Amino acid sequence: MKIAYLGPKGTYTGEVARNLFPDKELVSLNSIRSVVIAVEEGKVDYGVVPLENFYNGEVRETFDSLIECSKTRIVQESSLEIIHCIGALKGHGDIKNIFSKDQALEQSGKYLLKFYPNSQTIAVSSTSEAASKIREGNILDSAAIASEKSLKEFGLEILDSDICPNNKTRFAVLGRDSPLATGKDKTFLVIHPPYRDRPGILNNILSFFAGFGINLESIQSRPDGKNGYYFYVELNGHEQEPKIQKSIDAIRFSLDPEFKHNDTIRILGSFKDTNWKG
Amino acid sequence: MKIAYLGPKGTYTGEVARNLFPDKELVSLNSIRSVVIAVEEGKVDYGVVPLENFYNGEVRETFDSLIECSKTRIVQESSLEIIHCIGALKGHGDIKNIFSKDQALEQSGKYLLKFYPNSQTIAVSSTSEAASKIREGNILDSAAIASEKSLKEFGLEILDSDICPNNKTRFAVLGRDSPLATGKDKTFLVIHPPYRDRPGILNNILSFFAGFGINLESIQSRPDGKNGYYFYVELNGHEQEPKIQKSIDAIRFSLDPEFKHNDTIRILGSFKDTNWKG
Repeated sequence: MKIAYLGPKGTYTGEVARNLFPDKELVSLNSIRSVVIAVEEGKVDYGVVPLENFYNGEVRETFDSLIECSKTRIVQESSLEIIHCIGALKGHGDIKNIFSKDQALEQSGKYLLKFYPNSQTIAVSSTSEAASKIREGNILDSAAIASEKSLKEFGLEILDSDICPNNKTRFAVLGRDSPLATGKDKTFLVIHPPYRDRPGILNNILSFFAGFGINLESIQSRPDGKNGYYFYVELNGHEQEPKIQKSIDAIRFSLDPEFKHNDTIRILGSFKDTNWKG
Repeated sequence: MKIAYLGPKGTYTGEVARNLFPDKELVSLNSIRSVVIAVEEGKVDYGVVPLENFYNGEVRETFDSLIECSKTRIVQESSLEIIHCIGALKGHGDIKNIFSKDQALEQSGKYLLKFYPNSQTIAVSSTSEAASKIREGNILDSAAIASEKSLKEFGLEILDSDICPNNKTRFAVLGRDSPLATGKDKTFLVIHPPYRDRPGILNNILSFFAGFGINLESIQSRPDGKNGYYFYVELNGHEQEPKIQKSIDAIRFSLDPEFKHNDTIRILGSFKDTNWKG
């Protein structure tokens, strides 16, 4: 069995893939879209990609890539507490530059402004690359933000730990089969009303979920670039449950009674609710 | 008059700041939070930061920093069509690496997978830095993704244009005064229900807006890390309009009847609607 994940090695996504599939062959790919396509084309059995972070929000590339697929679905969610540390080489001098992945620099923004107000942040491709760059270049005037494990792996000294507290990322396991209902599941939908800006459209959609007594876990609206919207909606319940099916039918009919559009509602997956936000 | 913006020079944010304030002194700062704090502390008159991009979604650091302020508000929105180009030095060889800002690489993901499937993407701190890096290092096996202007400024040859079509970023002008109603305005709110996960909470909130006939422009939910949510809501209307005030009163009362929490609803600003999504 082969598992693709958003690499490179040593990233948080890699850690999740290893935890979930301890004995399987892991394949590191260099973009989210490549992971999704590898699953879609059957080149791997599962893929692991980030879905959402407390600080940075949802990962749009994951949703966009999933919408382009016909077989690939979210089959499992898994979250990881992100404990960023800052590290430098032993014998380092004043910290002029701080290397990390853009999102990690953003997440640590408050801390950096407080403790390193005069340092320059420098974005690199991954947290592990930040650590490796400092090690390989023997850079003594810079620090890296990464996991403790990653910093230690590259021989950096930990200067401070958990610099962005209360930070979690949710990851998705992607596959081509749909898991059965467990009794406590969630369903991810993308709703794309087939017309331009129309007042009250979101209220209309949500009134159906409310009417069927379906709770929303999360919602994001997003312009489609043509004066319309995509709505990403996560519901409590499994797509096989009658009330979920009825609500989807009702919304689809209300938005597109003649069924002229095939992307009005797309189900991105139903999977066990791990209550990751706690 | 001084205007701070998210730098460095040559970025899209800088371009917007220059367009909006052609004769003013511009100050480039290296993080969104620094721009917000400069406005809050009165060190500059206005600040310009990104708010949302079609592909990457809302910029959480902007919202997070605004929530931490008491005086700073969104006073104007301004959007820019983002036309990414890919460029390399004259006489370049095979393109092994592609440099850009993380978000631009993400936005161009589909294009890159199609035309440069074997190239490695390398994230740097800004699109203009990507171009300057190639120029300064005289790197012949790499390309950069940036604006046409930025690529040409660093003497790079344009290999392809508009590689991520239909891409817009919305920017916010931040200030300490609130603009008056123009008749076609929007209001940004953050709603933070003061209790943990409760079914139907979002339906309840939205039913008040529907009841008052207020249209939603956008909505994003976000875990607060304590099993509760923040809802970022953008409404049609100005905060001085009675129906907007009434709806805010009603929601605040329904969520927190004894007024025990001071962050249940925060207004981030009211400003003229530019209909940016078109």
